[in-house]
Amino acid sequence: MDRQLNAKISVRLFTDEKCFGPGIASLLRRVKKYHSLRSAAASMGMAYSKAWTILKSCEEHLGFKLLHSTVGGKNGGGAALTENAEMMLTAYDEYCAQIKAYADNLMEEKFSFYQTLQSNEE
Amino acid sequence: MDRQLNAKISVRLFTDEKCFGPGIASLLRRVKKYHSLRSAAASMGMAYSKAWTILKSCEEHLGFKLLHSTVGGKNGGGAALTENAEMMLTAYDEYCAQIKAYADNLMEEKFSFYQTLQSNEE
Repeated sequence: MDRQLNAKISVRLFTDEKCFGPGIASLLRRVKKYHSLRSAAASMGMAYSKAWTILKSCEEHLGFKLLHSTVGGKNGGGAALTENAEMMLTAYDEYCAQIKAYADNLMEEKFSFYQTLQSNEE
Repeated sequence: MDRQLNAKISVRLFTDEKCFGPGIASLLRRVKKYHSLRSAAASMGMAYSKAWTILKSCEEHLGFKLLHSTVGGKNGGGAALTENAEMMLTAYDEYCAQIKAYADNLMEEKFSFYQTLQSNEE
């Protein structure tokens, strides 16, 4: 037997209530790609009404707007991330990546007994 | 406005499939308390059949037993954690605590713009 442990880390941010996590991060990344909340939601199999509710709840608990409408330009208008949303998304992605790297490094130290168990079973 | 960001970190461990996480950790802590899988499940509002399924799935993907039956003794018999389960639970709790401490330290650095935003709005 040669099983390897791997960790998945999920990070959710709260002020008074939940205000940012994997769901809104994914939605914002897709708005950047599709320039539309409706298309972003559809691309992840999410109802538009649910995407809207998540967006409004995050904005309320963060205290700033995440999306604004654009008019014209090379994408012909649509939804775009506010400057604050861009900063939030960048900070969140970096934060998650650093936590994951720390957790991966710590894995071997904390779960060394698990590999020992397995070599004893061979 | 004076909102403070806080992080909740959820850690799930995988071998081939998910083998350990907050649910099984909570269940095992309660088996230690109640000396019974049935009472442990009931104490967290979980059906016994679901607790059994979670336990068996974790055991399969970890590759070792988590519970054994005890006979007699001061608790009059019942379920108890195997030595491997005790090691797993201890390692998981320490692992989560260290990741959380790291994430809390990193919060101020990564999200300093958020506090700046808020003081600008005052």
